[in-house]
Amino acid sequence: MPPNTGIKTKTVLQFRKGQKQEKADAVACEEPLELKLTFGPEGQREHRSLAITMRTPGQDEALALGFLFTEGIIGRASEVVGVRHIGQALSPESAENILLVELSPDTPVDFEQLNRHFYTSSSCGVCGKASIEMLNTVNLYYPQRGFPVFTPVKIQAFPHQMSARQVLFEQTGGIHAAASFDENGQLLLLREDVGRHNAMDKLIGETMRTGGFPMRNQAIMVSGRLSFELVQKAAMAGVPVLAAVGAPSSLAVELAESHGMTLIGFLRGERFNVYCGAERVRV
Amino acid sequence: MPPNTGIKTKTVLQFRKGQKQEKADAVACEEPLELKLTFGPEGQREHRSLAITMRTPGQDEALALGFLFTEGIIGRASEVVGVRHIGQALSPESAENILLVELSPDTPVDFEQLNRHFYTSSSCGVCGKASIEMLNTVNLYYPQRGFPVFTPVKIQAFPHQMSARQVLFEQTGGIHAAASFDENGQLLLLREDVGRHNAMDKLIGETMRTGGFPMRNQAIMVSGRLSFELVQKAAMAGVPVLAAVGAPSSLAVELAESHGMTLIGFLRGERFNVYCGAERVRV
Repeated sequence: MPPNTGIKTKTVLQFRKGQKQEKADAVACEEPLELKLTFGPEGQREHRSLAITMRTPGQDEALALGFLFTEGIIGRASEVVGVRHIGQALSPESAENILLVELSPDTPVDFEQLNRHFYTSSSCGVCGKASIEMLNTVNLYYPQRGFPVFTPVKIQAFPHQMSARQVLFEQTGGIHAAASFDENGQLLLLREDVGRHNAMDKLIGETMRTGGFPMRNQAIMVSGRLSFELVQKAAMAGVPVLAAVGAPSSLAVELAESHGMTLIGFLRGERFNVYCGAERVRV
Repeated sequence: MPPNTGIKTKTVLQFRKGQKQEKADAVACEEPLELKLTFGPEGQREHRSLAITMRTPGQDEALALGFLFTEGIIGRASEVVGVRHIGQALSPESAENILLVELSPDTPVDFEQLNRHFYTSSSCGVCGKASIEMLNTVNLYYPQRGFPVFTPVKIQAFPHQMSARQVLFEQTGGIHAAASFDENGQLLLLREDVGRHNAMDKLIGETMRTGGFPMRNQAIMVSGRLSFELVQKAAMAGVPVLAAVGAPSSLAVELAESHGMTLIGFLRGERFNVYCGAERVRV
């Protein structure tokens, strides 16, 4: 990663107890990334713009991989046969905001159906493909009943392990994180992004690239709250245990329940709540 | 509002310092809302699905109004000539998840262009209409230079006024809020939603319905962080001052700056940072 990726410095006027002073402040970098797809059988290759996400630059390839997988467009990493930035600078700091992803000629893409998923969205908290009929996305990797098991002590250690690695949060105080943990509760991988769904996609995409996929023996913890769509992404990747610093929504709990997942909220200090799948939390 | 709208009760297993107990816990309700549009000149009326957002039920009409305005589809409340739920129960608790919005025959809607904005999105943190070319959406109500002015003491009073009114947050610990304040720093209106962009759209939509629009002499404060898209929505509504509990992203600061807005972050206790437009913060 080049120096300073993910961070920009701004001059702020800081007010503290009636005093004010000018200082330099680090803010999390947010820039649009446009995903373009090349797909279709040999001789009939098509090129289409798929999505634009506001993301923190860095790990764009993992982001693309995770996004394509959790949105159900690809089933495995090998279906992506090429990825490259095709430029277009928005600002001098950010040279590369368009990513061209080449799919294998064998990967079928139904753009009509994708359009039905994507035309929607846009409010954020708004979920593109969450059309009412398809709330129960079929997932490829149904988690295994009662496996793995984590002790409460191991679960309580998730946040500490994360904060030690949240480099961008440490500097900006304003960026989401998603981390994976192995069966022993050891942190495997952590990704940060201004968009919480992007942090999750980067984590899943990187795991697809580097091995350990599907994530059937892992737990994921996220900063912030648990929405329906974060549960859906974790479910797609086969993750049996999903934890968060914040609260889950009603639909997050219901989706986790129907997928046999363990959902943990308000994981802070020596406390947490288990909303479903409590059989995976035992001494 | 019918009783319990916005909240569902779940049984959780609560872990506290090694002890566990079962208890009832309130979670914020999250359900999809599909917005359908009827538009076009008399005799050629068309019906199309516009967007699906994951929202907390309640104030759907205000949400639709704010969404249509901040997405640039309508310019004023009177362009919406009818709004009604057209049913379809997802669960017994939630009867109404499709909202049909009828636009005036005089309101032109270019669905081709909308599709270009909306096909994208979907990661959340992902901004539907944020195609790279249109980052600088033209806004209708450019804020007035150096007006209004808030003292630091009045700004520091925003969070206290909000927390007194965050009814759903009080019960669930997991729902976003957006509130408007008048020139004297008095809270005018507060809206809550699992989606932070929805909370903002509900606030703006309700203000459009009830008067005080455009919001050129008001400030808005949001829970959580400030993304590009929240700044864009506030800018559309003519809001000169936007504050948040959390950090802004780089693009949020840059957009606020280019629109002549005042952007305040980390507003907690007796401290806050002013990222731009400091001339509106004076004793």
